[in-house]
Amino acid sequence: MLVHVCNPNTTQAMTAKIRVAAERAAAPGTTILADESAFGPVSIEGPYDAAFAVPGLIERIRAAAAAGAAGHVVACFDDTGLDAARALADRPVIGIGEAAFHMASLIAETFTVVTTLSRSIPTISANLARYGLSARCVRVRASEVAVLELEDPHSPAVERISAEIARALAEDRPEAIVLGCAGMTDLAALLSARHGLPVIDGVGAAVTLIEGLARLGLTTSKIGGWARPLPKRYDGAFAGFAPVA
Amino acid sequence: MLVHVCNPNTTQAMTAKIRVAAERAAAPGTTILADESAFGPVSIEGPYDAAFAVPGLIERIRAAAAAGAAGHVVACFDDTGLDAARALADRPVIGIGEAAFHMASLIAETFTVVTTLSRSIPTISANLARYGLSARCVRVRASEVAVLELEDPHSPAVERISAEIARALAEDRPEAIVLGCAGMTDLAALLSARHGLPVIDGVGAAVTLIEGLARLGLTTSKIGGWARPLPKRYDGAFAGFAPVA
Amino acid sequence: MLVHVCNPNTTQAMTAKIRVAAERAAAPGTTILADESAFGPVSIEGPYDAAFAVPGLIERIRAAAAAGAAGHVVACFDDTGLDAARALADRPVIGIGEAAFHMASLIAETFTVVTTLSRSIPTISANLARYGLSARCVRVRASEVAVLELEDPHSPAVERISAEIARALAEDRPEAIVLGCAGMTDLAALLSARHGLPVIDGVGAAVTLIEGLARLGLTTSKIGGWARPLPKRYDGAFAGFAPVA
Amino acid sequence: MLVHVCNPNTTQAMTAKIRVAAERAAAPGTTILADESAFGPVSIEGPYDAAFAVPGLIERIRAAAAAGAAGHVVACFDDTGLDAARALADRPVIGIGEAAFHMASLIAETFTVVTTLSRSIPTISANLARYGLSARCVRVRASEVAVLELEDPHSPAVERISAEIARALAEDRPEAIVLGCAGMTDLAALLSARHGLPVIDGVGAAVTLIEGLARLGLTTSKIGGWARPLPKRYDGAFAGFAPVA
Amino acid sequence: MLVHVCNPNTTQAMTAKIRVAAERAAAPGTTILADESAFGPVSIEGPYDAAFAVPGLIERIRAAAAAGAAGHVVACFDDTGLDAARALADRPVIGIGEAAFHMASLIAETFTVVTTLSRSIPTISANLARYGLSARCVRVRASEVAVLELEDPHSPAVERISAEIARALAEDRPEAIVLGCAGMTDLAALLSARHGLPVIDGVGAAVTLIEGLARLGLTTSKIGGWARPLPKRYDGAFAGFAPVA
Amino acid sequence: MLVHVCNPNTTQAMTAKIRVAAERAAAPGTTILADESAFGPVSIEGPYDAAFAVPGLIERIRAAAAAGAAGHVVACFDDTGLDAARALADRPVIGIGEAAFHMASLIAETFTVVTTLSRSIPTISANLARYGLSARCVRVRASEVAVLELEDPHSPAVERISAEIARALAEDRPEAIVLGCAGMTDLAALLSARHGLPVIDGVGAAVTLIEGLARLGLTTSKIGGWARPLPKRYDGAFAGFAPVA
Repeated sequence: MLVHVCNPNTTQAMTAKIRVAAERAAAPGTTILADESAFGPVSIEGPYDAAFAVPGLIERIRAAAAAGAAGHVVACFDDTGLDAARALADRPVIGIGEAAFHMASLIAETFTVVTTLSRSIPTISANLARYGLSARCVRVRASEVAVLELEDPHSPAVERISAEIARALAEDRPEAIVLGCAGMTDLAALLSARHGLPVIDGVGAAVTLIEGLARLGLTTSKIGGWARPLPKRYDGAFAGFAPVA
Repeated sequence: MLVHVCNPNTTQAMTAKIRVAAERAAAPGTTILADESAFGPVSIEGPYDAAFAVPGLIERIRAAAAAGAAGHVVACFDDTGLDAARALADRPVIGIGEAAFHMASLIAETFTVVTTLSRSIPTISANLARYGLSARCVRVRASEVAVLELEDPHSPAVERISAEIARALAEDRPEAIVLGCAGMTDLAALLSARHGLPVIDGVGAAVTLIEGLARLGLTTSKIGGWARPLPKRYDGAFAGFAPVA
Repeated sequence: MLVHVCNPNTTQAMTAKIRVAAERAAAPGTTILADESAFGPVSIEGPYDAAFAVPGLIERIRAAAAAGAAGHVVACFDDTGLDAARALADRPVIGIGEAAFHMASLIAETFTVVTTLSRSIPTISANLARYGLSARCVRVRASEVAVLELEDPHSPAVERISAEIARALAEDRPEAIVLGCAGMTDLAALLSARHGLPVIDGVGAAVTLIEGLARLGLTTSKIGGWARPLPKRYDGAFAGFAPVA
Repeated sequence: MLVHVCNPNTTQAMTAKIRVAAERAAAPGTTILADESAFGPVSIEGPYDAAFAVPGLIERIRAAAAAGAAGHVVACFDDTGLDAARALADRPVIGIGEAAFHMASLIAETFTVVTTLSRSIPTISANLARYGLSARCVRVRASEVAVLELEDPHSPAVERISAEIARALAEDRPEAIVLGCAGMTDLAALLSARHGLPVIDGVGAAVTLIEGLARLGLTTSKIGGWARPLPKRYDGAFAGFAPVA
Repeated sequence: MLVHVCNPNTTQAMTAKIRVAAERAAAPGTTILADESAFGPVSIEGPYDAAFAVPGLIERIRAAAAAGAAGHVVACFDDTGLDAARALADRPVIGIGEAAFHMASLIAETFTVVTTLSRSIPTISANLARYGLSARCVRVRASEVAVLELEDPHSPAVERISAEIARALAEDRPEAIVLGCAGMTDLAALLSARHGLPVIDGVGAAVTLIEGLARLGLTTSKIGGWARPLPKRYDGAFAGFAPVA
Repeated sequence: MLVHVCNPNTTQAMTAKIRVAAERAAAPGTTILADESAFGPVSIEGPYDAAFAVPGLIERIRAAAAAGAAGHVVACFDDTGLDAARALADRPVIGIGEAAFHMASLIAETFTVVTTLSRSIPTISANLARYGLSARCVRVRASEVAVLELEDPHSPAVERISAEIARALAEDRPEAIVLGCAGMTDLAALLSARHGLPVIDGVGAAVTLIEGLARLGLTTSKIGGWARPLPKRYDGAFAGFAPVA
């Protein structure tokens, strides 16, 4: 089974880390196709960056579908472009934020999200509300670590995230922690051991969910908002993305 | 006062109709700057189209801000790109969906939305939930009129919308109707007179809200998710959109 | 356009301050008719006071309607008597609490309300819930400043309100502040400058919303709970208020 | 134990019917003090009527408290004036709407309310939301029977209410019915027998709740919105209602 | 009237205390039948214990119904087995958690629950959500007093509960306190006097609610989930509990 | 990997069908251990049956854990005994209702549940509310097929379920269907093909979720309500279930 994991920013080092996490989570027999967007921001921090990350993500979804992917993972915790990707793809698409929230809900009555910058909190909170899982989340907290600091081995990023988890345990009393950035995907086991509670990483969670859906023969319903794009003219820079019949 | 109204699709006929509605709603002394995106889909029907409409919208926001606009209206009922536009702009930005929902809430305990295609219902419902106004909306209904049929004077669009309103009154018993597409902006008065209840158009509503915010000296808070985009590298097709310090 | 702004308590000094704020917010060409109730409490602090403020408010609504008002503002943050006023009036009626909540929602994902006495918190919270905007409000806080202290230039009212805003910023991290009393209407600009975030005053907000509704030709739906009062006998002190066919 | 039941409209025939229901529900040893407001509307149909019913209700609460009442029932299904009455009284106060909703919740997962006129639906719905019991109520339905028709033995009121219950059973499938008007208090047993499910009357429910609270020594918390009214000046017609220290 | 109060754990000392509280709350003419389960855990602390408490509770419900009970109280704050008991019994059944929440809602806009161990918090929170009263509850707090410590007069249980109430008043600012364990039933008056706000005990509350329902002739609706158990075979240890036609 | 799937009723034919579905969903290398409770009801239809199914389920959980199971599936759509099983087990436990709801949420914005008897609707609705997924479920519908009719090849069960799905599509317009009984596990593919939308079976869904959690090294948080049972005395029939240190 080929599972596509797309990093919607343009930073290849981050893709490499995501690939490792995805491969570790995958079942025997699964191959991971990890890639990143060819254009847009080097990291997604807030809705402005997110808006420019989607076209590149869509191009990768299209290519991976042509390559026979059994499903697609959007490896940005904001679930950037998830609706558009679902509309395009015939096979299931899962965002890592969504994946982490659902998996956490199966092992913890409540969880706290620890993300990067505080500007990402409203998007994460809105996603939780839309998915219905707001009541499971005690709080979305920012560690104020920028996304690309996570790629710098000399940065104090890990310790700052760990300190934020400690504050969460003291103030929010959650039953689990959800890591709120694809760039934290390598930290779950370490932080779980250090703090003594489940720590959920969305990349691994999403890979197993795609595998499960694929084995069950389930894919996105095309009845509602994720219906295939209607054929129509696209102008200018996006002419190449026009949906066709 | 210069109020910018941006049609995020590329159909100029629709911009022309939106301009008329905006000018009719504006206070004495307000000038309307109406434009449309230069690239992307000719109409926005579902999240795939929406994803490709945002960069062109952002370009127009930037230009209108430079031209001195006191505020911006995003003239797509899905409030496409609203978060990104708010992050960029210093002056207030309002989506016409949001505007219609808030204005309707001031004159009716409950309302029904009548939009174009059923594929738009989930986005509208999700927006209502995020804004907090789901409980005010009895139902989001689709007339199954395509957006561009509204630009065709020979289409049966108006009668189909009117018939859907009649069904809404019989089945949902709302106190008001919200028209769920910028392309319906010229129909509010006609349909209100025909059906005997308030019919709200988001274009006019948004223009008056921008005027109000501007007169009150209020603009988007930059504390949370609508903080100014961080300076960073953008790659490929979007290099020109990179936020700078 | 004549916009009626009614202070439902009997304190004329407060009306004077409200008039100034309303006139500053109004568009060119708008005339403000500001008045106060002729009977009832000198200030509204809790539901007991509110109950006795409504008949005097209604009398003023009736008179202003006869004078040709294009709409009415109820200038008490509890939105006292709003339902009754809407039922009576043909033209739109807006409470300043409601107006502030809706306007704040257009420029901030979240806000904190700073009101006068803690006994007003449950009414404000219940209003937020009814309007659907509870999730936008992080917290309703009391400064424990009595309403009429706001009319005393020698009172420490302003500093106590400012201190409460400082506590709100530290503890609630809202994106904006809503001032929770008509008597604070002159403080918004000062407190916004001092604390560096949007501070919303309901009086100005409500005036611009009435102007907007009036220009759009929208008024209260008479289909539901705001239907015109049925003709019937009223006894005793209220005989004069009996609705007639 | 003396239990006060106040009909906040001025129709004595309705008070007589309420007294009978209250006495039937009361425990041995309870005396019912039933009265009605001396001024205001002859029936409460919508928020305009409600606004003018409160001062007369408050006067009765004050008198009954002086007479030693162990608690007070507000016998209007809209729970008119409940907050003001609770603020004034030292002993518990319960509205019959609230009482019926809570009692229904103890014997049925879901219920439908059948009230008089459709203009009362928004108030009842708002009350349900404030009390937290919206999810228990499938629907609030209007029989379109005017309140005073219930006092006319020749009116078709009972059959129209019964027909509305039949429609509710077919369309809403509730587990119980709540009668939405004090004037229906004599119909619960008849309609329960006819339709084969629990039918709850708020007057009887409220009397037993007051008895329970009184035996438990519980009364209204004065910490929040129901704090005793502050001493202050009242002007004009309401001078006599001014709260004193 | 015979009111059955069942302690679903096997600790007779706790039953004795519950009996006293029930008798003090009961109206003249009511007889209390208090008993406890014959098998299962000596205390219910978390869902594992709860699961094994239900069969013994059901046996007591069956016996008390045969003895002519007018209704049944489940005297565990988790409302353990309430659905099963309601399905079996013809007469009303009320849990003491549910009873306390509803009674508190009639005298306080908000309350805090103080229970025994933190492992009980999720069950209590889930019950509040199901009943619809989550918004009334500011917080569910654990005193970390084990259930059977409440039966030990030398334990510091009372002081720890009192200290937790003090923390609740400082941090949550509730209008009332609900005691979250049947074993605290003797402490309500003491703690109310000490802390100066209403303190609600569920045992007394439930007894008065059963009396009220009985006098009103109301009992559990059999239309939905509380329908009488269908006749079917039960195997092994539970053969004796098989429902019969 | 050994995955335990427990049918909490005593009907072995149903276990056999569940085993087939579980094996079909499992990844290569997974072994299914399917069993059923040794005592209690032959089917679970409503909360009374559910209460007596839990002890037998717990015994099976204990045995399968001793046998090295990597996780446990509770194969009753009501998620019967899920909290108790989670408290006991060290490895993850998932109910098939919960599994189906979460998986459906990843491929459909909305779904309708089609279950057996209407008496099961309140439990399913309450579970949806607790999990946070009520807003995703348009309606829970009963086919009025008894659980054991699903084991009878000559019964009209399949056609009645199919007919209920057809009604759901016409009336609720969901994007997917969730089958609301373990006994329907063999029907998902057939009904999906017939009705042209995703049809989700909880047994397969839960197996893939257990596999995913196990591969990710995640298990139930023991911080809250699912903490290990405290050591204490159990009396009578349940002495053998007493938790020990």
